[in-house]
Amino acid sequence: MIPSVIRTQVAIIGAGPAGLFLSHLLHRQGIANVILDSRSREQIEQTIRAGVLEQWTVDLMNDLGLGARMMREAHFHRGISLQYGHERHHLDLEELTGGKKVTVYPQHEVLRDLLEAHDAVGGGQIVFGVGDVALHGLTSARPRVTFRRSEDGLEEVLEADFVAGCDGSQGGSRQHIEGRTEYQKLYPFGWLGILVEAPPSYHELVYARHERGFALLSTRSDTVQRMYIQCGPTDDVADYPDERVWRELRVRLATGGWQLTEGRIFQKNVVGLRSFVSDRMQHGRLFIAGDAAHIVPPTGAKGLNLAVADAVYLYRGLEQVYRCGRRERLDAYTDTCLRRIWRAERFSWYMTTMLHLNPGENPFEQRIHMADLEYVTHSRAAATALAENYVGLPLEG
Amino acid sequence: MIPSVIRTQVAIIGAGPAGLFLSHLLHRQGIANVILDSRSREQIEQTIRAGVLEQWTVDLMNDLGLGARMMREAHFHRGISLQYGHERHHLDLEELTGGKKVTVYPQHEVLRDLLEAHDAVGGGQIVFGVGDVALHGLTSARPRVTFRRSEDGLEEVLEADFVAGCDGSQGGSRQHIEGRTEYQKLYPFGWLGILVEAPPSYHELVYARHERGFALLSTRSDTVQRMYIQCGPTDDVADYPDERVWRELRVRLATGGWQLTEGRIFQKNVVGLRSFVSDRMQHGRLFIAGDAAHIVPPTGAKGLNLAVADAVYLYRGLEQVYRCGRRERLDAYTDTCLRRIWRAERFSWYMTTMLHLNPGENPFEQRIHMADLEYVTHSRAAATALAENYVGLPLEG
Repeated sequence: MIPSVIRTQVAIIGAGPAGLFLSHLLHRQGIANVILDSRSREQIEQTIRAGVLEQWTVDLMNDLGLGARMMREAHFHRGISLQYGHERHHLDLEELTGGKKVTVYPQHEVLRDLLEAHDAVGGGQIVFGVGDVALHGLTSARPRVTFRRSEDGLEEVLEADFVAGCDGSQGGSRQHIEGRTEYQKLYPFGWLGILVEAPPSYHELVYARHERGFALLSTRSDTVQRMYIQCGPTDDVADYPDERVWRELRVRLATGGWQLTEGRIFQKNVVGLRSFVSDRMQHGRLFIAGDAAHIVPPTGAKGLNLAVADAVYLYRGLEQVYRCGRRERLDAYTDTCLRRIWRAERFSWYMTTMLHLNPGENPFEQRIHMADLEYVTHSRAAATALAENYVGLPLEG
Repeated sequence: MIPSVIRTQVAIIGAGPAGLFLSHLLHRQGIANVILDSRSREQIEQTIRAGVLEQWTVDLMNDLGLGARMMREAHFHRGISLQYGHERHHLDLEELTGGKKVTVYPQHEVLRDLLEAHDAVGGGQIVFGVGDVALHGLTSARPRVTFRRSEDGLEEVLEADFVAGCDGSQGGSRQHIEGRTEYQKLYPFGWLGILVEAPPSYHELVYARHERGFALLSTRSDTVQRMYIQCGPTDDVADYPDERVWRELRVRLATGGWQLTEGRIFQKNVVGLRSFVSDRMQHGRLFIAGDAAHIVPPTGAKGLNLAVADAVYLYRGLEQVYRCGRRERLDAYTDTCLRRIWRAERFSWYMTTMLHLNPGENPFEQRIHMADLEYVTHSRAAATALAENYVGLPLEG
């Protein structure tokens, strides 16, 4: 039986932030695209991931007309707090960066907004729940993606000019980038995250270094809070009954005249922390973007924003090809992305090493991280450096 | 035989930067002091050590009337260069810090100026070449220091109100600080340093990260240059014949349109790099200062300046006691010093890890240090943070 063939200009593997932003940007310029994703739409819309948007990401959402709900529902913070030695220090990021804010708006809400916009404008097909995705002919003029739909299990072919691999860290696209170098660091700790039915405990995010380990007080909405404690990289959530989690949060975040707002914990998960970069992000007509190409530990709140930046750069490259037949931008895609990625990797590594207790470090090294916190909370130059990274460096070009 | 007894107000062990500055400052306020040192005056005046003065150290030398030769002979640089990826990046520290300069003036020249001033003003006794120094009764009202002169080998006693242990990292004073915590980090590399008969190769210091290891182009005078290459922490100078040293310097410092000025190498030495802090720096009537209390790797050019800062803080504490009988400043000596020391330790650790090739680090970690260099040479905030530390944070109070 001959598989049915879908023809498009850009085949996008993955309906996460990179894939959906890319699709949206391409569609606005009339560049046809089809997205394949192995997950269901419900899974995509409900999986809890990152939660902090850089200023330019917010501006982009608004420029694209996607920002209405975000502007109503997001929490906008002037800054963040860094806590160590049982004292909380406010960094006024807005003042330090000349007006840029911290926008707390969960990734799955961004995806919902993108999917809704996609529905509204008829932005091309998204095929959810596909299996057996395989890439072919990536160095030919017309690469093909084969896959099976969940409904009938029949193999189909998606034929395109270009393939965008936005299929996350576990996706198969990256394996096709021949000659790539992979850089990786596994941290000897993870985050136990909880979702809690409670109003915010504090008016901004609190990142705490404590002798028992890192803790982060974050927020999701007026009624749902997100909190994290440092744990072992492969710890089992079963070892963290609610009372243990609350005890750790109370101790690690304790500071004078403040109390943690508790509530029903309705979700718990453990993630190991790692840093990862694939250097090259392109091969023939395949381009990878987002988590498929790089991972940052969540401490710097950079993952989602990096994926969006990749999507913008890839869009610009493709747009140049279709508009005027020139490939300079597309050829420079890896280099353009990597400049930003390594800056974000550096920042995420800095925040992670500064704030976590690393059991492999000696007392001098642990004390140095306290000195780092002391410095960044007392030097305007150092605080400005942290701030400009946290709210997001501007896109190039 | 009853030993002869010298009576003074402050007994100072060690005629390095901490001891000599302390002695000078005390003498100006009419506080009597005696210095003991196990070395000869010639050794002290000729041992090559650090070479970069922070701006406030320069200002202090001038305020004390000790700066005339320094202002004539020192090299004043607007900034430093950081080199990586075979490109040299100038950081204009003077512009970034609102006018503070990098002053290259070797430590032994500072010591010569201090010793000459000491001779000129009759600043109290300095006993060189002493042996068997031992401290007694440090928690009593009149501590005593016993020692033997090299001339006659007879034991003598120096009796004082206070003892200042300025006897360097290998001195015995620190051992008397009861209940101290020692923080230490040994780096898996060292510096091979050379002194060369040659004019400067470049108009400012060049710190280079290279895939073969760190290199530093420094200067001593118009006719003598100081250069360093990263080596193993316990390497033997015999393994570095001149031609090998030149080859490494040429390769590690190579950049377009520039050539290394070579000359006769007349000194070679290897030092291992380490960080060290003693937390407490006082016990009873003993106070330790300078290398006796802390060591920084030389990458941040902080060692000499930290020793002078300790001396100033200790002087201020003693001066308060003698002038108005109050001990607040002396009691706070350790805390006051440690705030500055941990900042300098942090900066020295940052510069060292950023610029050296650490064979124990994986490719991701090595790449992160390149990203650190890329960031600090492209972000004004990050460059300002480096600059304010390099030229020296102001003294407290």
